Amino acid sequence: MTRGVAILGSTGSIGTTALRVLARQRERFRISALTAHSNAALLEEQVAQFHPAYVGLVRPNGGAGAWRTGPECLVEAASRKDVDVVLNAVVGAAGLDATLAALERGKRVALANKETLVMGGELVSQASARGGGEIVPVDSEHSAILQCIGSRPRSEVRRLVITASGGPFRDWPREKLETATLADALRHPTWRMGRKITVDSATLANKALEVIEAHYLFGISYDRIDVVVHPQSVVHSFVEFVDGSVIAQMGMPSMELPVLYALTHPERVHDAGVPPYDPVEMSPLTFERVRWDDFPALRLGIKAGRAGGALPAVFNAANEEAVAQFLDGRITFGGIARAIEGAMRSLTNRSADSLEALRAADCAARTYVKEMVAC
Amino acid sequence: MTRGVAILGSTGSIGTTALRVLARQRERFRISALTAHSNAALLEEQVAQFHPAYVGLVRPNGGAGAWRTGPECLVEAASRKDVDVVLNAVVGAAGLDATLAALERGKRVALANKETLVMGGELVSQASARGGGEIVPVDSEHSAILQCIGSRPRSEVRRLVITASGGPFRDWPREKLETATLADALRHPTWRMGRKITVDSATLANKALEVIEAHYLFGISYDRIDVVVHPQSVVHSFVEFVDGSVIAQMGMPSMELPVLYALTHPERVHDAGVPPYDPVEMSPLTFERVRWDDFPALRLGIKAGRAGGALPAVFNAANEEAVAQFLDGRITFGGIARAIEGAMRSLTNRSADSLEALRAADCAARTYVKEMVAC
Repeated sequence: MTRGVAILGSTGSIGTTALRVLARQRERFRISALTAHSNAALLEEQVAQFHPAYVGLVRPNGGAGAWRTGPECLVEAASRKDVDVVLNAVVGAAGLDATLAALERGKRVALANKETLVMGGELVSQASARGGGEIVPVDSEHSAILQCIGSRPRSEVRRLVITASGGPFRDWPREKLETATLADALRHPTWRMGRKITVDSATLANKALEVIEAHYLFGISYDRIDVVVHPQSVVHSFVEFVDGSVIAQMGMPSMELPVLYALTHPERVHDAGVPPYDPVEMSPLTFERVRWDDFPALRLGIKAGRAGGALPAVFNAANEEAVAQFLDGRITFGGIARAIEGAMRSLTNRSADSLEALRAADCAARTYVKEMVAC
Repeated sequence: MTRGVAILGSTGSIGTTALRVLARQRERFRISALTAHSNAALLEEQVAQFHPAYVGLVRPNGGAGAWRTGPECLVEAASRKDVDVVLNAVVGAAGLDATLAALERGKRVALANKETLVMGGELVSQASARGGGEIVPVDSEHSAILQCIGSRPRSEVRRLVITASGGPFRDWPREKLETATLADALRHPTWRMGRKITVDSATLANKALEVIEAHYLFGISYDRIDVVVHPQSVVHSFVEFVDGSVIAQMGMPSMELPVLYALTHPERVHDAGVPPYDPVEMSPLTFERVRWDDFPALRLGIKAGRAGGALPAVFNAANEEAVAQFLDGRITFGGIARAIEGAMRSLTNRSADSLEALRAADCAARTYVKEMVAC
């Protein structure tokens, strides 16, 4: 019996990685639904290769044939009866509705959409409780933590340690950071990713988002989630248990394993997607403390996570907008964290008990940053 | 409900470590039986502290009071009704009988006695099958592997990688190794252990024994067990799974965790025995290939393991005798491996289907080495 998979965001980096993995795992999984944002040409190729029963295109440019179009296609694909697992690789807040729809219908969500938990951590927990669905993370750090915990009860976990490559500015002196250029920021040492995520890993805002996600995914308090810089990106994260033992998940940097594991968890299946890890070749492994004062976005994000309510949504939206402004050359690298801090200070924290409230917070934060830059 | 523990070898390094751990875990475990080899004074202190129902002394020097004496006390202690877990920290082949007795009575054996599996791997499997007992390893490398596998099925394991500190001669040139002195050999970089084990870690014979033990403990073929040198002894071993993921168990070098975990597996309990692992403090972690040609004892041991039958017992006994001769200054460091090789070449391999056959092989190998040295 194969399990039906819906891939939301099939033409993006995670989506194409997932299709590479699934092309090798046809005995276990079938592609039931594919949706893409706007890349109709690539989606068409994918449809020809995998023959999904459902195809959606969020923003069609010209003809989309028999495909469903518009943003509703995400929830539609995630809700289908023939879908057992929804790989949510949508970028942005639009991913949240689809996650909730899948969880309410008892499906597994393989989650690569940060907004789902950062904005809607509390709504997501409620939807899982109602519908019996479960979230399994795709992000390499969270996948590592899940693999380290395995099926052990959470009460045995003392501490999570999320590793950070440190980004391209890991060893830059503080005074140079302020005016780091876009070209500098896009030179990521170990992972090849999209521009937004690469900038997030230069500011360490990505680690703040990961800490918030880990808090919701694993039910661990912020006091017990640490971040450590590990430039080689070989140890994908650690878990320290109550008896003092530390379990780490390691390997070559590759997204194929976390994608596959999110589908098969708690089982493991034969797969050749990850280059074999040779500890000698990858030696030495180094670890450094986070330069908290020089990368303020990390501390701001964790502060937002601790505050809860709509503040994580404010942090996330302000960061997205600030990165967009940086990518457009309108603010300096140092300005990204200042924009986030301004938004978090200026906007009143609200509760996060509805999608509407979260969207309002998201919108207010973006507007704040845009206006701040325009002034 | 506390579980009853028998400690065989309570005055040795592992035994005293175990009592330190158990003094903190009195809510879960009670000491039902203690046996020691000959250190009556320390045993008396332990008895006063833990009040075991049974006390045994293998080799009494003078009065032993109400204690049982003689080598039979090991099997007696291991067979008691009030004992749920037998921590077998006996040095030498005498540990094998006690392991078999406990397994046949359905008990858990927390195993720190190498001879049990190296000599009697096949007998042990049979005894477990008959009586329902189980072996849980105490050795830090095997404990690490068990912790990495957790409760996952063995079919998901692709490869075990056992780490080796490399011992004091890790970076010595080949020509100097031949005449390395006892003082050189006893300068172990990371672990503080007895003299025999320290010499074994200088020849890498200890890794050969661990590979053989891992083969029996985890049911993994020799082709899929590797050794890698890791001088910091922070990564205690790795497991590579069929999907390419690598899970490692890490932490400060300390025997308290493996001892505790052998008692609580698969659960973990709160304990403060292991110093907290600070990845930054312990950075960098390095890995090197084994210098197979310069440390021939490792290859000889694995060859014995692959051959099976009584050859692992021959390897083990020849090594023990050769190390004793080295400790007494009668052979050079290089002579240890030559003695082992001679014994393995000269003695016909027999089957290992009885304790008697194993003891005969053990005895023949010791005699061979003694005679070789005397010539």
